[in-house]
Amino acid sequence: MDSFNQQVSQITIVGTGLLGASLGLGLEAAGFTGKIIGLGRRQATVERARELGCVHEATTEWGPAVAGSQLLVLATPLGAFADLLGRLAEHDHDGLVMTDVGSVKQQVCSDAVRILPEPGRFVGSHPMAGSELHGPDNAFRGLFVGCPCVITPQQHTGAEALALVKMLWTIMGMNLLQMSPAEHDRKTAYISHLPHALATQLVRMAARNDALDVASSGFRDTSRVASGDPYVWQQILAANRGEMISALDAFAQELVGLRELLDNHEDQKVLEQLQSGKHERDAWLSRTGGSCP
Amino acid sequence: MDSFNQQVSQITIVGTGLLGASLGLGLEAAGFTGKIIGLGRRQATVERARELGCVHEATTEWGPAVAGSQLLVLATPLGAFADLLGRLAEHDHDGLVMTDVGSVKQQVCSDAVRILPEPGRFVGSHPMAGSELHGPDNAFRGLFVGCPCVITPQQHTGAEALALVKMLWTIMGMNLLQMSPAEHDRKTAYISHLPHALATQLVRMAARNDALDVASSGFRDTSRVASGDPYVWQQILAANRGEMISALDAFAQELVGLRELLDNHEDQKVLEQLQSGKHERDAWLSRTGGSCP
Repeated sequence: MDSFNQQVSQITIVGTGLLGASLGLGLEAAGFTGKIIGLGRRQATVERARELGCVHEATTEWGPAVAGSQLLVLATPLGAFADLLGRLAEHDHDGLVMTDVGSVKQQVCSDAVRILPEPGRFVGSHPMAGSELHGPDNAFRGLFVGCPCVITPQQHTGAEALALVKMLWTIMGMNLLQMSPAEHDRKTAYISHLPHALATQLVRMAARNDALDVASSGFRDTSRVASGDPYVWQQILAANRGEMISALDAFAQELVGLRELLDNHEDQKVLEQLQSGKHERDAWLSRTGGSCP
Repeated sequence: MDSFNQQVSQITIVGTGLLGASLGLGLEAAGFTGKIIGLGRRQATVERARELGCVHEATTEWGPAVAGSQLLVLATPLGAFADLLGRLAEHDHDGLVMTDVGSVKQQVCSDAVRILPEPGRFVGSHPMAGSELHGPDNAFRGLFVGCPCVITPQQHTGAEALALVKMLWTIMGMNLLQMSPAEHDRKTAYISHLPHALATQLVRMAARNDALDVASSGFRDTSRVASGDPYVWQQILAANRGEMISALDAFAQELVGLRELLDNHEDQKVLEQLQSGKHERDAWLSRTGGSCP
């Protein structure tokens, strides 16, 4: 934390929803001694985050919010990133390192190269934390603790910028992973974007079949993510369109395969699939501890 | 509870795994004053349940376990039901009401008619409680509280037997629903058996794509049920084969539909699907309170 405090006396969080506000709370709890500025489009939202103690200052003006900062985090939904990078390009300065918390990385990383004057100071990151709730009122300081965080530097990324962004998420208690934006987008399609689509379709199909009256705890957990913000998720699915289509195709094929096994009474093979699913999940849980909130 | 204690001085629980052992604990906690007998195939498992205080007596012998009981609950995996009903037919007596906790109801209800001398004293039930864990060591008395319980009486079912079984699950704190075995099996395919299959395939596909290293809390919850006992679930999928095949077909069609929307950039329609999924789930949660453990 000392090294971070030496390098950063002011941090700007753009967007003070669940992630941005939790980041502010987490920084304060971790011993950050500098100033945390919340920058947003609507004064009411940033002001609410300030009232809740998530940021020290709340503003809608880019100039003063960015001028004295050494680190800036884009924490809005994905759809706003291109516009925000445009605003950032106007207010950028030599001493500023930039990152984001977006769930899809190829788009923002290539937008940064296209839009920012010095893209070497931008480092994509994806802290894999969150919940189906949103807004600063649901923020809490431990949101990121124990969760994976994917950092997606590119060839032109500066070493100092990369080091600072890695330090930020390490301070938040995250488990860091580094990979290309493309690898990130392919992997998260399978563990986040596809599961979201499955949960959504599951709820819709259960409702259409009047089956929700018998649903219980298994259904509640399997479908939890379907309660997430539809606007946020529509932007994620659109931003990762190609990988989502591949994942949906592959998954539909899996379902057809299982259907054939059942239809042919190949119950031993059904058992083997259930066994391998349990085995892989239990092994993953024991590797990670499953401690992410 | 008084009325239940007047009618039942001894209850036999066949199978003392998670559900059977939790039922014993729950009965005791609710003020049941009679004797609870655990009957199992393996002495070690019933003996463990007795050590843990889930049942008063542990035995592998049908005769003495059933002779003095007014109520018997089959709480083993589904695959054993036909054999157990055969044993039960040998030891059945006039004063005995029988039920089960199986996840599929048409099979056990028709087996009861075929096998039992007086099937009017058998009432199918499905307490929709459980977890991905199993065995008496994971049992707890509140397992059933706040969860739905589906009762599936048939035309020949006796009114007194039905009333006693409803009383049992009401005492356990469950929300009772009554429907035909066929309706139960169709509905649970959508809210339990299909979700289980999706979770299994999701884990297997994520593992195959080396994507588990980035998986976080959303994936953990969406896939939780995939850690369930593969033998138990293979029996469930086989027992509800026809409905499972229909549900898999319908779900694969939904995925193809979403894929086409994404491919055609019909993002407004994608948003509407996400909105309707969230709406249905949130409405269901506020109806039920989501308090089932």
